[in-house]
Order: sequence, then C-alpha cells, then structure tokens
Amino acid sequence: MVVVMAPGATQEDVDAVVGLVRSAGGDAFVSRGVTRTIVGLVGDVDEFEALNLRSRRGVLDVVRISVPHKLVSREHHPARSVVRVGGVPIGPDTLSVIAGPCAVESAEQTLAAARMAQAAGAALLRGGAYKPRTSPYAYQGLGETGLRILADVRAETGLPVVTEVIDPGSVELVASYADMLQVGTRNMQNFALLQAVGSAGKPVLLKRGFGATIDEWLMAAEYIAQRGNLDIVLCERGIRTFETRTRNTLDISAVPVVQRLSHLPVIVDPSHSGGRRELVLPLMRAALAVGADGVMIDVHPAPETARCDGDQALLEADMREIASTATILSPLMGRTLTQPVPQAAAAVS
Amino acid sequence: MVVVMAPGATQEDVDAVVGLVRSAGGDAFVSRGVTRTIVGLVGDVDEFEALNLRSRRGVLDVVRISVPHKLVSREHHPARSVVRVGGVPIGPDTLSVIAGPCAVESAEQTLAAARMAQAAGAALLRGGAYKPRTSPYAYQGLGETGLRILADVRAETGLPVVTEVIDPGSVELVASYADMLQVGTRNMQNFALLQAVGSAGKPVLLKRGFGATIDEWLMAAEYIAQRGNLDIVLCERGIRTFETRTRNTLDISAVPVVQRLSHLPVIVDPSHSGGRRELVLPLMRAALAVGADGVMIDVHPAPETARCDGDQALLEADMREIASTATILSPLMGRTLTQPVPQAAAAVS
Amino acid sequence: MVVVMAPGATQEDVDAVVGLVRSAGGDAFVSRGVTRTIVGLVGDVDEFEALNLRSRRGVLDVVRISVPHKLVSREHHPARSVVRVGGVPIGPDTLSVIAGPCAVESAEQTLAAARMAQAAGAALLRGGAYKPRTSPYAYQGLGETGLRILADVRAETGLPVVTEVIDPGSVELVASYADMLQVGTRNMQNFALLQAVGSAGKPVLLKRGFGATIDEWLMAAEYIAQRGNLDIVLCERGIRTFETRTRNTLDISAVPVVQRLSHLPVIVDPSHSGGRRELVLPLMRAALAVGADGVMIDVHPAPETARCDGDQALLEADMREIASTATILSPLMGRTLTQPVPQAAAAVS
Amino acid sequence: MVVVMAPGATQEDVDAVVGLVRSAGGDAFVSRGVTRTIVGLVGDVDEFEALNLRSRRGVLDVVRISVPHKLVSREHHPARSVVRVGGVPIGPDTLSVIAGPCAVESAEQTLAAARMAQAAGAALLRGGAYKPRTSPYAYQGLGETGLRILADVRAETGLPVVTEVIDPGSVELVASYADMLQVGTRNMQNFALLQAVGSAGKPVLLKRGFGATIDEWLMAAEYIAQRGNLDIVLCERGIRTFETRTRNTLDISAVPVVQRLSHLPVIVDPSHSGGRRELVLPLMRAALAVGADGVMIDVHPAPETARCDGDQALLEADMREIASTATILSPLMGRTLTQPVPQAAAAVS
Repeated sequence: MVVVMAPGATQEDVDAVVGLVRSAGGDAFVSRGVTRTIVGLVGDVDEFEALNLRSRRGVLDVVRISVPHKLVSREHHPARSVVRVGGVPIGPDTLSVIAGPCAVESAEQTLAAARMAQAAGAALLRGGAYKPRTSPYAYQGLGETGLRILADVRAETGLPVVTEVIDPGSVELVASYADMLQVGTRNMQNFALLQAVGSAGKPVLLKRGFGATIDEWLMAAEYIAQRGNLDIVLCERGIRTFETRTRNTLDISAVPVVQRLSHLPVIVDPSHSGGRRELVLPLMRAALAVGADGVMIDVHPAPETARCDGDQALLEADMREIASTATILSPLMGRTLTQPVPQAAAAVS
Repeated sequence: MVVVMAPGATQEDVDAVVGLVRSAGGDAFVSRGVTRTIVGLVGDVDEFEALNLRSRRGVLDVVRISVPHKLVSREHHPARSVVRVGGVPIGPDTLSVIAGPCAVESAEQTLAAARMAQAAGAALLRGGAYKPRTSPYAYQGLGETGLRILADVRAETGLPVVTEVIDPGSVELVASYADMLQVGTRNMQNFALLQAVGSAGKPVLLKRGFGATIDEWLMAAEYIAQRGNLDIVLCERGIRTFETRTRNTLDISAVPVVQRLSHLPVIVDPSHSGGRRELVLPLMRAALAVGADGVMIDVHPAPETARCDGDQALLEADMREIASTATILSPLMGRTLTQPVPQAAAAVS
Repeated sequence: MVVVMAPGATQEDVDAVVGLVRSAGGDAFVSRGVTRTIVGLVGDVDEFEALNLRSRRGVLDVVRISVPHKLVSREHHPARSVVRVGGVPIGPDTLSVIAGPCAVESAEQTLAAARMAQAAGAALLRGGAYKPRTSPYAYQGLGETGLRILADVRAETGLPVVTEVIDPGSVELVASYADMLQVGTRNMQNFALLQAVGSAGKPVLLKRGFGATIDEWLMAAEYIAQRGNLDIVLCERGIRTFETRTRNTLDISAVPVVQRLSHLPVIVDPSHSGGRRELVLPLMRAALAVGADGVMIDVHPAPETARCDGDQALLEADMREIASTATILSPLMGRTLTQPVPQAAAAVS
Repeated sequence: MVVVMAPGATQEDVDAVVGLVRSAGGDAFVSRGVTRTIVGLVGDVDEFEALNLRSRRGVLDVVRISVPHKLVSREHHPARSVVRVGGVPIGPDTLSVIAGPCAVESAEQTLAAARMAQAAGAALLRGGAYKPRTSPYAYQGLGETGLRILADVRAETGLPVVTEVIDPGSVELVASYADMLQVGTRNMQNFALLQAVGSAGKPVLLKRGFGATIDEWLMAAEYIAQRGNLDIVLCERGIRTFETRTRNTLDISAVPVVQRLSHLPVIVDPSHSGGRRELVLPLMRAALAVGADGVMIDVHPAPETARCDGDQALLEADMREIASTATILSPLMGRTLTQPVPQAAAAVS
C-alpha cells in the first residue's frame, strides 16, 4: 500500500501516517520527492484499510498495490486448479463443453436439447429451472418441477447437470438435484447467495456480473471460497459497454487476465454475450483459441418457440460444427476434449 | 412493436409474421419500403414477445416501441406519487433530506450521527446494520444489534429509519424495526429480494444498480409494485463508466428522465457516487437544482475511524451548509423542505 | 512514481531498477513488504517514463503518482484563471451564458437566434460555420459564408462570437472572424488541430471528448497551453456510457473535479449531453448549482426546420427561464452574471 | 423509418406527419395501437431526416430502421471486398499479418523490427513516423525522416509499408512514401483527415475509435468511400470500458458483426487493446479464430528501450509462435496465409 501525501502536507502529517501504520503493526518508508511525498506501507493491508488513511490530514490518495483476493489468488496458490463436476474435470488440461436449453420448459424439450448437447460433444448439461428475468412479466421457470426434469434427463443421458440458483433460501433444494450450482450475472454480488452456495457442498459456476470488474468478480469468488468451497469455475459472459450492436461485449481478454491472477478455471458463454445465433460459433472459436478451459452454449430443439432467449439458441445443424471445432482446437491448445462420462459412472456421481 | 424484415424476405415470410400476430390476438400493418419492409404490430406486446418473432425466417429485427413497465409507469398513472415514511412525505411538492452513517457501529456513533443529521435538516435517518461489501474481509455490519440501535435512536430523535436489507430471509426481521427498507445497488436485480420487500408492508428505497439502465431500474421497481407495494422511492447513486477520477459517475440526467417515465419519487445519493467528501456538497446542490425529490447523505461524527466509506462522510461543519442549501433551493424549486416529524407523531409511526 | 516488483523479483532486479533511476538523475527508495517490494522514485517523471521500467525484469507494474499535466495544473498555478473573450470574462467570480444556433444556416436565422440569446441573458454568441457530422450525408455548414454572417451579427448585437474550427488548415481563416475558437468533442485528441489553435492568438473553448477521461482532457488542454496559449475554457458536454435514454451522460461531477485539478474555467453544455429539449433547463440548473463557470446552450428560432440538432434547441419561450435561472443562481453561487459588453466596447474587440 | 406518436397525439398530429412525409416524396402507413400509434415511412431516409420529425407536435420518437451507411454497406455491395496493398491482398480468402515497430526510431531499429516481422510471417510492415500522443511531452515521431527510413526498409525487405497520417496537411507527403495510410483511433472522426485520405489514391487502414460504436466506425469509412476510395481495411483495436485490468477491451464480436454489415476487410490489433505483452498472442489467436482477415502486431528488437508502447511489443522469441499460429489457423478458417511479395514484385509496387 502506498500513501500519497498532498502537496501542502506538513512533516507532522507524514509523521501521523507513519505513527498510525506502526500502531497497526506495520512499517512505513518515506520517499520525499520534488512535488510529492509518498509513504510505502509494509504489513497487513486489511489492518491498514481500517485506518481510513485517505481521511487523514495531508493525505491526497492511497493506492493499493497487492491484490485484495487471497484464497482464489494465484499468488497464494500458483498451480491452476481442476474442478470436478459429477466426475467431469474442468481445468488447464481439458476443454469442456457445457450445453443445454436456457430454460427447462418440459421433459421432452429438455431431453431433446440434451441429445443435441451430446451431439455437440458436451460433457455437461445446462438448463435453468429458476430464471432471473429483467421483467416480472417474463417466463420465470418451472422451479422444482424443472429440477426433477433435469435429474431425469441426467439419468437418461449420463450428463451431469449445471443449474442456476437465485435465492439463498432455495440453495439446499437445488443442490439436492444439481451437480453444479450456477450463480448468474445479476447475482454476482448477491453476497448472501454467495455465502449460501459456498456452504452447499457442490461445485459452483460463477458468472461475471455484466457491470463487474475482474477484481470484483474474483472478490465474489473469494466469498464462496471463504466458506470452504474452492470448487469454483468462473464464466465470462460479456460486459456492458456503449456498443449496442451486440447485447453485451464479450471481454475475451478477461480469460488470460484471470488465468494469471487466479488458479480457478475460466470458461466462456458465447451465447449470452452476443445475444444472436450467428455470433455463437465465431465467439466459441475465439474463446477456445484465447485459452478458455471450456464453453457454455445455449441449444434448443425449436428456438422459435423457446420461452427464453430463443434468439441465441443454436439449432440441430450447428451441433456438428461445435463438435468439430472443439475437436480440432483442443490439441492445438494442448488440451484434451472432455468426454461425457459413461452412464454407469454417472449413475454413482 | 415493429418487425423489420430482412432485405431478402419473401412475401411468405411477411405473411407468416402477420399470421402469427393475428393468431396471438393482435393486428399487423405492413409498410413496404425500397430497401426494407416493416410490420407494425397492434395488440398485447407481452403476447407478441412469446412469439419469438426475431427467430422467424426473414425477420431482421424486432423493435419494441412501448415502455415495458406498467404499474410504475407514468403512462398508466400520470400524477406523480407521494410516498410517506413514518409520516414524512417524499414527493413532487417537498424536498427531503435523509442522512446518517453508512454503517451503524455503536449506539453512541449512531446517535451522534443522527444529531448531525438533524442539524443538517434531515427528516429521516439512514444507517446500515447489514452491509453488502465487495470484499468478504470488509466490515459486514452489526446485524440485529444494529437494528436495535437504530430503533433506539429513532425513539430518542423522532427520525424515522431507513435501513438496508440484503437477503430475502431477513426481510421480515428488518421490516419489524425499519420505517423504510433499502435495496442496495448490488441487489437491484436480486429478484427474490425485490419480491420479498414487495410483500413486506413497508416503503422501499430502491437504489439504481451501478450497471443498470434506467429501464432496468424501472423494471426492478415493477417487481416490487407487482407484489402490491407502490410505496417505492427511486435513488440515483451513480453509474459505472470509464472515468476513474470519481468512484462512479452521477447520472444527474436520470432524475428528469425518470420523472417523465415514472410517477415514483426520485432522490439522489451524492455521497456514494463521488466517493469523496469534497464532492458531496456540489453534487447535492446539483441534485436539488435538477429537480430531485430529495437527497441521501452520509454523515459520521468521526469519519477517520468509520468502518465503512469514511472517505465520503461529511463532518459536523458541513451540516450547516447542507441545511442552508436545502433551505435556499427548496422555494426556488417550488418545494417545501420536509420537516422532521415531531416526536409525538413519530412515536405512533 | 512507484515501481511495484513482481513476487518473484530478485535483489538484482530491484538493484537494476534503482540503478536505472539513478542514471536518469533521480533517486529511489525501496520498501520491502511481505508479498511485495515497492520502489518509490523521486525526480523528473518524464525522464523516468523514458526508462520503460514496466518492461524490465522483475517489474510487475509502474504507478504514476503525480499529475501528468503541468501548465494547466492547479498544482503549478494555484489561483483559478479568468479568460476574456471579446472583453467578456469567464472565470471563478462570474457566470457566463453562451447561446446561439448549433449551425449558422442564414443571416436571418442567426440574427434571430442571437436576439433570443440576448433575451436569455447571454454575453456570448455561439454558432457553427463548419460542422463535424457523423454522417457525410448530413449538413456540413456554410463555411466562410457562415463566418461572415457571424461577424455581421456580432456587429449588429455586440455579442462576441464562439465558433468551431475542424481543420488545422482553416484555423487562421476562422481566427480572423471569431473571438473564440471552439474545438469539438470529436477533435479533442486531434493534436495537429490543438497545436494550431494554440498558436492562433485567440481564446479556445475545448470540449471534452465523449470518450475521454478527465486526465486526457487536461492533457489536450496542455497541448494548447504548450504553444503559449493559456486562454482556454473547458466545456463538459457528456460522456458515452451504456445508458441510452439520453444521448450522452452529463458528467456533472467533472466540474468540481476539474476545478480542483486545473486553474482553467469550466463550463457545461446541457444541450448536447441530453439531446432533448426538455432536459436542457434542468441540466443547466444542475450545472450552475454544481459550480460551473458558465453554460453553453443551443437556441433556434424554428427548431423544427433546424439543419442540425433541432431536437435539443430551446424555443423563444424558454429564454425567460434561462435568464431568470441564471439571475437567481448567480448570487447563491457567489458569482456575478456576466453582462453583454456594450456595443461600443464590442466594436474594438 | 418509424415515427412513434406520443400517447396524447391527436389525429391532426398524425395527419401532419403523414403530410410532411408525402411532401418530401415519401409515403406513410399508420398503425394505430392500444397505447401507441406508429407511422411507417417509405422513401428516402435522408430526406426524412431533414424533416426534424422528432420536433413535431405529438411525436414521441423516431426510430431509424435502415442502416445509414451506403457505399461501405453489404446491403448495397453483397460480396466481401479484397484490398490490395503493394500487391498484397487483404480479404475474405486470405489471412494477413502486419507487423513492425510502434514508432520508427532509427534505421537500424526499423530494419531489425522488419526482419522480426518477416520471421513472424508478416506480409506488410507497420511503423509510425508521426505519433499522436496523449501527452505533448511524449515522443512525437521522426516525421519525414521516419518516412524515408520506412521506404529504405521496404526497398531492403520487399515489405509494403503501412504508416499513420495525423493531419490533412501532410497526407500528400505521407502518401508519397507509404503503401497504405493508417488513420488512428483518436482521428477516426477527424472528418477533414478522412476526406483527405479518401482523395489520396492509397489504401487506408481505418482504426476504430476507442469510444466509437460500430455504426460510427462504418460512417467514418463512408466518409473515405465518398471521396471515391473504397480500398479501406477496418481495424478493431479495443474500446473503452470500465475494466481497468486491460488498457482497452478488445471487442472481438465486432469482427463478425462488421463482416455482416460491411463488405470491407476487418483486421484486429491485439497489441494496443491489451497493452501488455503476455496478452498479444492469446488475443491474436482469438482474432484469427473469430474470423478476422488479418492481424497487426507491434514488434521491437529491444522493447525496454522503445520510445513508444514498449510494454506491449513482442520479442524475437515470440516471432516463431506468431508464424506457427498463423500457419495452423489459416487452413482451419478456410484461408491462405498471405505470403510476402517477392522483392522484384515489391520493387514495382
């Protein structure tokens, strides 16, 4: 941490800062420049935060130098992690495709979408039973009925299930059906929910808030980790910018940036960022080429009747292209395409 | 709603769209231009949304024309509303100052801050017992102990209490102490929480998400309204932009824009947008001059020891200036400065 | 300047940085923390920039502490400046209204708009003869004919003229007619143009780029100042954000922020940020209340036939309200409303 | 174009709009809905723009449906174009690497960088003689001396030269040396410059403004095209967002979006968006995988002494990886890696 003194700061002001830092168990080094004096702090940054140094007389600014996240940070855990979901690994050596319908609408539609996902080479099934929607008049999901459908389709196909949870009160219920709990973009800073999924005993897929910085995203993961759950997969899904030709702007650079800062796996959702079917395959290729550990894709057997985000759902005909893209790019990226777990194995997951 | 056909759309494509719209109980008018054919839809827009017209063959785009919010919309409720909080009105004819500490830290600090708030002319006391913090290592608030302190200070000062709720599971508890429930910027799209406060029987202060558009903000209010609670006050507190000299960019234009779209009162939080003490007073003046129905301000008896956002808390000496600014600007804006409710009245609130 | 060493940096890496800094005539202080070592640099920052320290082995990051602007900085010139335009002062003690048509379309229209401006209490006339337009198919302005019209209207009304220049090649021509040269938002980083207006011998109105940070804006002013011209007035006119209900988001906080960083006057353009007539007056009030040194407003005798930005031009009926707002807010802000210079004085300007 | 009438609009208001549209040679179709009446316009949109319909009584909004660009639009020119630069094609069937130093500093440095570029498989050499810098105190380039160095290096290596032009007044001079004129991100809406390069008789590389939408970028290209020059290559280089971990946010989705809207080739600059060396290769792979027609990369023989953007320049050791990435990804994307033109051919270019 660096304290920047204001141009008019006096010697007493500097001494006061040094004194506060020492009283908090740290040490302070003063560099006196022509126009600025700066004080470098050594010690426990969280202790220093509590000193409110920015409010002290003669202080112009306080610059934090070290990263604020710990448990999810690569600085504290250099090797990149592998997260296993129903036996399927997501991590640095593999490339995982997660696919399925945006919303679970019926048993038939979900099974058909799961079959499409398999044709696309997916090793995990996604599908929402609880849908957080911008409008209260939009489709809100089937709730527990949807969870049961997902469990049935898992039994039928062997694909472990990733599904969203939107309320701390329903985490236990959702966790009793799901293999992985998804926290959506609008809930990335719903701290009560983060703490609840941190204690639920299941891997978590943490989507980036569309208005969140990379550091805030990692701090959200830290909330989960702090409850003892380090089985977290991060998912970049586009951020909000001034550009309106796409629904969100996929921040493709976030993948390598996060992989340097954190040991957690990072995947990309090319469906929600673009918001249009014709962008999904190009963005999926970009995600794999930039080094993502996997992708998550919306598929639907009949997008024109989808109750949610039909504009971006891929069609039957696109499945082959997903599969072949993943197959070709995996070895180039030094990865193995994750295979669906055989049904027997899945049964015990 | 307007459907824009793609350049290569055929007559059958256009007919198919018209047929779908009529089957959904609506009507459709075709305008055939040189490079584009557009179809104007008449009827129930929510029905049309379910048709997934954007996914139909030959359709280039679908443009929504009417506003998606209803209960909070001025189109359906032209007169601007007054929301009463513990007897204190917030609305078009008054100017209300809400002030208090960012976080409730102790009985002494809260009472001292409440006395400052009164000196500043505030009619309502704010203070957080549950703090949603970006970092799990930051101060998280006193919880129910904090709520009790707020209730005690209300009894002592007569100031009704505005306090934040961060979890659907604790809405009932918080509502049993508070006069107004605050939903914070990070929870603006926490739909489970919105529904819970919508049913809690107390007025709600809904802060704008820092990454949320005005329309999303109004849709969040619609979630609350849909549960039967129209006692909602909106609070602009800055949005996230590329500018880093301020913590957030106060979207001052949002005040008049929202006042034309919605009948709900709109106030401004000049403390959290700027994030620095010296910006609070100028931004408060701007908020009142632009026509806001009130302001909410952080005060603290000893900002340098504050456990939360001490950088922006105003000092004792600033109170007089807040009071005089509010007193001078109220009549210019055709408003009456809301007076604190006499303690007797407060007792029955 | 602070150099942050990477976690794995060796003693030699630190020594190498210290050596480079000393070889450049500076000094370096090392603070060795638990997870980070930082090096505080003392000396000429521009020399240090040339060392490319960020590219050196073991260096994680380089943080600039001092402000990069000099001539326009308040650190080097504490008293706030007054810029005189055709005898009219713009600065900390006055409040100046600049008004006129977005584009000069004809002698009649310009004179009528100037009369409106006078009714609104304006002391300066704005009007564009060269219009930078997003589309090559939009109206591009009358060029020199427009400049002559502006000069004639100045002779008639006594109002000094502010007009835009868009090309280094025409600076001399425009300067021969204008009292103040405007650099538009799209040209804020057109460095050749900045240098040309810096040498033209006329005051400059520098609009903020809609995608520019406050620091970049001040650096653009520094380009002008470097050529010997410190008669610069800064104009905030809205930045680009994700919000689409307004054309741009007026960054009202920029006014007090800039006034602390720079000694140059700062005015606000409430017409271009909102882009809609009904927002102009509220935003003008906010601008004056936040402490702006003036405002610049679009007026047009017949907005529905305007060749440029008719949606935001104020009408005859609004002039009284501008005048009364400026008259009432000036004393509250401790300012004198700038009066139009009597015609005799204007004649010699 | 669609005119949306306000809720309270009368029949006369609607008739007035229809009358104006017909007087401008167009036709209008009225769709009367429950809460809204909309009028679909058929005819010349630029004529309609001049009607200022948004300012008419009873009009709530005007929505433009057709794209505003013509010459560069795929709607008017469906086949994707090939632009030839010194004999080297850039277009849908090829993959072109442009590489070189950010700034030309000396003959030796430029030649060494050009040799690196060749080792990386580049077919074109980039290098700046005129540098637009945010700070007037930063290195501004060698000017014409730099242009001569570039010409010498072209003679030596056979690589055609891409170099930036920053001022309409020097376009002719730069065009006399360069094979392709670059317009930088800060000049994307410098309309005088766009018109000058449109008349210069050389291909143009048009970088996207970091604050510009895709539509504004295409309108900037339209300015060049309008002067008769359709040899334009678009270059995505990152946009400004709230994320600060990267210098800019590479808008990778812009590549497929632009390729659907415009027939012009689109390349990506992975060096300037990330601003850090370790991001260049991942972003280059993402660019090629998303379908870009080429990439432009900063290389420098000794980045730690670079006078400009040394933080992002690739090293000797990275060249092999660029070459192999381009070689492997070209066939996957159905493209041929553009080969450097043999020196004999280059001599006559």
